[in-house]
Amino acid sequence: MTDIPYKIYLEETEMPESWYNLRADMKNKPAPLLNPGTGKPMTAEELSGVFCADLVAQELDDTTPFIAIPEEIRNFYKMYRPSPLVRAYCLEEKLQTPAKIYYKFEGNNTSGSHKLNSAIAQAYYAKKQGLKGVTTETGAGQWGTALSMACAYLGLDCRVYMVKISYEQKPFRREVMRTYGATVTPSPSMTTEVGKKILAEHPGTTGSLGCAISEAVEDAVTHEGYRYVLGSVLNQVLLHQSVIGLETKAALDKYNIKPDIIIGCAGGGSNLGGLIAPFMGEKLRGEADYRIIAVEPTSCPSFTRGVFAYDFCDTGMICPLAKMYTIGSSYIPAPNHAGGLRFHGMSPVLSQLYHDGYMEAISVKQTDVFEAAEFFARSEGILPAPESSHAIKAAIDEALKCKETGEEKTIVFGLTGTGYFDMVAYEKFHDGDMTNYIPTDEELAAAIATLPKVAE
Amino acid sequence: MTDIPYKIYLEETEMPESWYNLRADMKNKPAPLLNPGTGKPMTAEELSGVFCADLVAQELDDTTPFIAIPEEIRNFYKMYRPSPLVRAYCLEEKLQTPAKIYYKFEGNNTSGSHKLNSAIAQAYYAKKQGLKGVTTETGAGQWGTALSMACAYLGLDCRVYMVKISYEQKPFRREVMRTYGATVTPSPSMTTEVGKKILAEHPGTTGSLGCAISEAVEDAVTHEGYRYVLGSVLNQVLLHQSVIGLETKAALDKYNIKPDIIIGCAGGGSNLGGLIAPFMGEKLRGEADYRIIAVEPTSCPSFTRGVFAYDFCDTGMICPLAKMYTIGSSYIPAPNHAGGLRFHGMSPVLSQLYHDGYMEAISVKQTDVFEAAEFFARSEGILPAPESSHAIKAAIDEALKCKETGEEKTIVFGLTGTGYFDMVAYEKFHDGDMTNYIPTDEELAAAIATLPKVAE
Repeated sequence: MTDIPYKIYLEETEMPESWYNLRADMKNKPAPLLNPGTGKPMTAEELSGVFCADLVAQELDDTTPFIAIPEEIRNFYKMYRPSPLVRAYCLEEKLQTPAKIYYKFEGNNTSGSHKLNSAIAQAYYAKKQGLKGVTTETGAGQWGTALSMACAYLGLDCRVYMVKISYEQKPFRREVMRTYGATVTPSPSMTTEVGKKILAEHPGTTGSLGCAISEAVEDAVTHEGYRYVLGSVLNQVLLHQSVIGLETKAALDKYNIKPDIIIGCAGGGSNLGGLIAPFMGEKLRGEADYRIIAVEPTSCPSFTRGVFAYDFCDTGMICPLAKMYTIGSSYIPAPNHAGGLRFHGMSPVLSQLYHDGYMEAISVKQTDVFEAAEFFARSEGILPAPESSHAIKAAIDEALKCKETGEEKTIVFGLTGTGYFDMVAYEKFHDGDMTNYIPTDEELAAAIATLPKVAE
Repeated sequence: MTDIPYKIYLEETEMPESWYNLRADMKNKPAPLLNPGTGKPMTAEELSGVFCADLVAQELDDTTPFIAIPEEIRNFYKMYRPSPLVRAYCLEEKLQTPAKIYYKFEGNNTSGSHKLNSAIAQAYYAKKQGLKGVTTETGAGQWGTALSMACAYLGLDCRVYMVKISYEQKPFRREVMRTYGATVTPSPSMTTEVGKKILAEHPGTTGSLGCAISEAVEDAVTHEGYRYVLGSVLNQVLLHQSVIGLETKAALDKYNIKPDIIIGCAGGGSNLGGLIAPFMGEKLRGEADYRIIAVEPTSCPSFTRGVFAYDFCDTGMICPLAKMYTIGSSYIPAPNHAGGLRFHGMSPVLSQLYHDGYMEAISVKQTDVFEAAEFFARSEGILPAPESSHAIKAAIDEALKCKETGEEKTIVFGLTGTGYFDMVAYEKFHDGDMTNYIPTDEELAAAIATLPKVAE
């Protein structure tokens, strides 16, 4: 073994003082959000009815490379950051690979994932604007948990619309949010007009993320002093998540390590966009080259089988249109897909970069993901979230290729979170009850056919 | 704020290379374990039928002050250690106290607690002895999880007898253990003679820790190549857990911080004994003085309302007798006590020190514990385990006393783990369904009356 420690921790003084805005270095900027009514780019005024003013500015700013992280947010970050960059010595040993594997572990906080990095930022700007609270939706609950933690810290009201089936089947996530003082409402609910309407039409429905988004947005725009916040896809979220990549790069630089391959799982893109930001910046500026790989599930293959087009971000079709890789907002992953990353679209920033050839994308099967997750847990100790395990699977495959070729490549991947609240899926896997789902071409074509018509 | 960081991380090179054996500095040594049949001290030969040889030696060694940590164990420690010593700036701010509060956080690993420190040591020595595997019991599941992680790492078979009611009500803990390859059997089971006997007598029983211990011991002694391991109470466990205190002291020394008060929760004593070890050593040698406070639940008050006498460690009364503070092995905490720390006795080492006046003990009510837990979560972000929250409650109380007096005391407490698998208890607390239980004098007297007669 070399003198590289198992875990590289930066000093608090080495933590980033600014977020990095990848868009500033992109020649082809991501396309603007469109007003679904007019088909025209959303203005700051239009957006500020839904989002906080500072966040609207960040959403629209594609020229400023560095945006200072306010001191209050940096202090909050210090409660759980810097997160460790771990050298996976034990995994390498078990794989008998010459590759050097590192992972940036974002699960060392109660929300259990990287989501907290943007949650605290969004809550901070809401507080700064003098708002009373924020509303959001949550599916599995990672984002809702992160936001409730951030709001508890700042004394901000937090209203979470949780997809009803998750509310009932994941009571523990719900209780974590309540511990942090959030109001958690099963969606659809009788507290919003859209909820009432859906319940009248579908009395027995167990809800969907699209419906929860609609309720959260309605709640925000109809209550004085509230705004809506979102945990992925948006440009502002990728900006906040750049703290992951900046810390990763600083830790690698400290030991003169240059990665060959950078791997991240991709749902809406918040983790991947954050992890790769400074590396992609170097690549865009022609200063360095890296293989960058996005990993998505075969059951929700927006990069690998989607189209690059304007689409709704929500199934309720009330949010602005975003130009992105999408398999259609009407596409809903099969219920047997428990492995996370269920969003139909992809961050516009990452979509543009993928379209322009700056990164690769692959899809992996759910059972292979859980097999990799279990192998990783037994090697490295950490019980990974199903989402993160997509990156693990790809990293292991690359390390095994190195074993064949004898190449000593350096692989860095994002371990976005822990799987403590995903044991139902692990149980299915252990019991041999887990299956895979690969949509047919016809199925995807049908969903893609419902994309809105936009004249670009 | 001073220049003391939020989290003090030691370098890996600063991690302890030896465990500290507190017994070496005790004038009054803890009393020996007795053979329940003969009433005589257990010999190494007798113990080695149940425990690994190296662990028997550690169990009986009360003179060697430092015992080297084998390199393999130190490498495993590096996967999740050094653990951070956190300055609770946010908690101090919320309390508006002049006190300086630090906590040693042991929850940053998948087992979710400090238990892993001893699990890897015990598994290592079993492997070194060429054994095939180990057996153990688990109630809530922290210890079983830790042991299954350690065994997975070393390729050792791990058989966990899990109290049947926990097996059914805590399926997630069970699945974590299965992820690490452990065999988890609901106890009582039909796989052991003692299990069959109990099931014949009590067909509908949901099990007890005492019964699970009996099954695990029988499994170990009746199978070639297996030994039994235990996660608390024993001298060897406190020895391994001294890594907590040694790191804490090294981190404090690095910044010239001298604690006034050291607080730990106390069930069987593994965390408290480990945390205080080097500080108590200084106190025993007359080099320094500290207030050391053990915190236990009012529903299981072995220190504060028990007697110092020989008792069984298990309710099945098959294990050796230990001299300790106990409220009787027949005492079972009321079912409404969800807050952990349910063991009737206390580590013999800590019992002797308490008896000799080197430490204090207090008991706290369950609802106060959860109130403190929630307050802490909202201040510091971390969702604490109910067990750890006993120490939080006491630390907050001491900090509030400082607020009254204006004293700037330095308080250090052990945050032993996270509460992700305890959300049922949190839910009860949120819903106002949590009650307290304080045993009557008559109830305790009746349990204490069943103590075995031992001629000392």
